Amino acid sequence: MRGADRVVAEDGIWHGGDLATARALFPEAPGPWIDLSTGINPIPYPLPALPLSLWTRLPGADDEAALIAAARAAYRVPAHADIVAAPGTQILIELLPRLAPTGPVAILGPTYAEHGHAWRKAGFSVSEAVVPSEQAATIVVVNPNNPDGRVLSLKDLAGLAARCVARGGLLVVDEAFADFTPETSVVPDIPPGTIVLRSFGKTYGLAGLRLGFAIGAPELMMKLKAALGPWSVAGPALHVGARALSDADWLASAGRDRTHDGARLDALLASHGRIVGGTALFRLLEAPAAAALFARLGRHGIYVRRFQNAPDRLRFGLPGDEAGWSRLRAALTLDVREASPSA
Amino acid sequence: MRGADRVVAEDGIWHGGDLATARALFPEAPGPWIDLSTGINPIPYPLPALPLSLWTRLPGADDEAALIAAARAAYRVPAHADIVAAPGTQILIELLPRLAPTGPVAILGPTYAEHGHAWRKAGFSVSEAVVPSEQAATIVVVNPNNPDGRVLSLKDLAGLAARCVARGGLLVVDEAFADFTPETSVVPDIPPGTIVLRSFGKTYGLAGLRLGFAIGAPELMMKLKAALGPWSVAGPALHVGARALSDADWLASAGRDRTHDGARLDALLASHGRIVGGTALFRLLEAPAAAALFARLGRHGIYVRRFQNAPDRLRFGLPGDEAGWSRLRAALTLDVREASPSA
Repeated sequence: MRGADRVVAEDGIWHGGDLATARALFPEAPGPWIDLSTGINPIPYPLPALPLSLWTRLPGADDEAALIAAARAAYRVPAHADIVAAPGTQILIELLPRLAPTGPVAILGPTYAEHGHAWRKAGFSVSEAVVPSEQAATIVVVNPNNPDGRVLSLKDLAGLAARCVARGGLLVVDEAFADFTPETSVVPDIPPGTIVLRSFGKTYGLAGLRLGFAIGAPELMMKLKAALGPWSVAGPALHVGARALSDADWLASAGRDRTHDGARLDALLASHGRIVGGTALFRLLEAPAAAALFARLGRHGIYVRRFQNAPDRLRFGLPGDEAGWSRLRAALTLDVREASPSA
Repeated sequence: MRGADRVVAEDGIWHGGDLATARALFPEAPGPWIDLSTGINPIPYPLPALPLSLWTRLPGADDEAALIAAARAAYRVPAHADIVAAPGTQILIELLPRLAPTGPVAILGPTYAEHGHAWRKAGFSVSEAVVPSEQAATIVVVNPNNPDGRVLSLKDLAGLAARCVARGGLLVVDEAFADFTPETSVVPDIPPGTIVLRSFGKTYGLAGLRLGFAIGAPELMMKLKAALGPWSVAGPALHVGARALSDADWLASAGRDRTHDGARLDALLASHGRIVGGTALFRLLEAPAAAALFARLGRHGIYVRRFQNAPDRLRFGLPGDEAGWSRLRAALTLDVREASPSA
């Protein structure tokens, strides 16, 4: 596995989505690479025509207002809460520790590693566990969770929020994968002391655009806005985001299609292990032979997500076309043969 | 002047570039608006074709490496310094206070107001003056300066840097307008304790793209990189930036053309006041009748930049086509007639 050291990013956290890593790990794999290592919708929202002025001018207040109005409606933000747009959710994750006056911080894990990383960088004491420590002042929940799809009830989330408020902390709910299950979102009845993160790029298949949101009490959102400064979101992202977030028909249709794809993926993976969970955009497979399966898929030019702390698990995104489904089926079939030569 | 309250942005700082404000101030002006309120090149770098994958995928490490390599060469970053890309220089300005352990901070002003604003927000004591206070640990210089084009010599900048280092602070040199005058840049011989900011959008006429850079000692750049987190720059911005920053011919040609345009603007403005200074992308006019001239231009659908603390000054960007030059000439001529009816 030449170049294996490249799989660890600069911050030491493994991420999906970087095919340069896949190519370094499996230099002789046939192309084109099929990237199933992310939870990004493989069928993107159709890009509208982009007037040149979106590129040439500083993003205008009117463009930002249009995006914010569309996002408020799409996410059902109540009138007493505010919403802030940023160039991706990641930078909001980096800024959140500036809003919490006290620790310690509990991350409901295992989950997306950048949350814990950001709080640790900011000097907070951070624990990651399935049940948040009793001492935690601030709690971070990814809901539905990445990678296992676990969903906390709205009642449980309200209970966690009350606990955080009582200790002078915050409840952070990362709803990056909630767009297709709006009933799981706390936004319409956002509890006091809660900040919700929403990602644009995954559901709309436009992760390169960089657009994400934070939702919460106006005084907290004002601080995030001040930390980002003016013009943090690019003109094209304001325009595409406003258009896509106003398109409820596309969202409903994409939800149906991806749910169908998920069932198809379940069927393909059934003989390889146990589906621990997932969302409409990915599935988490638990398999004793996960490492061998990762390598086999890689040699077939198919990149899936493995985990530093869970070597028996792999996360699969969805193929975006029939060629991708065929190659995945072929790679999985070959793997079964080779892993069990007597079968 | 209906809607005049809209000219003050949320942070209380006036900015050029937001035509919604111009429209609110002069609702009956003829369109299309000619925006001379910014220092953005009106002739943008030609946008290359943008593969869909730049939008759909998370920005890849290879794309970022290509941008960084092009930027290192374009800005002549020495091997011992590092460079960080961000979604616009503005967010770097917001992050800089996190790198300076001590104050007070002196801003060489008057200059771009967001510098002082960011340091004040972070709790630093900030003074703004033509000569930095002797007590300053950190000094911020925009070089060439916006809006008056003042240029400090490399020797003076090195002297300021040494002073800041001795006091445990930083020298910040914002070279947003240095692309057309590379001889003014400290980057090739960047002094210890110095952070240089470079903006992509102004010179290349693509301010909506959001791309900026910080250059300095590796340990400081690592902190900025950590504060931004991964994928802070959008895929299309990585691609366009890498292409444009590698195109030395375009830069040389744009520099010649804008210098020519600047001389043409000088001639038009000569009878209206004194040209205090400027760069290849703007001129600063000092005129006792500046307020009347601003309003006259506004009623002609031409938006220039005025200043909260210098009511006798106006900054003029460059028209981008002959129609714009004609309308500017007509508006300036009418203004002269009306201001001096006996002429």
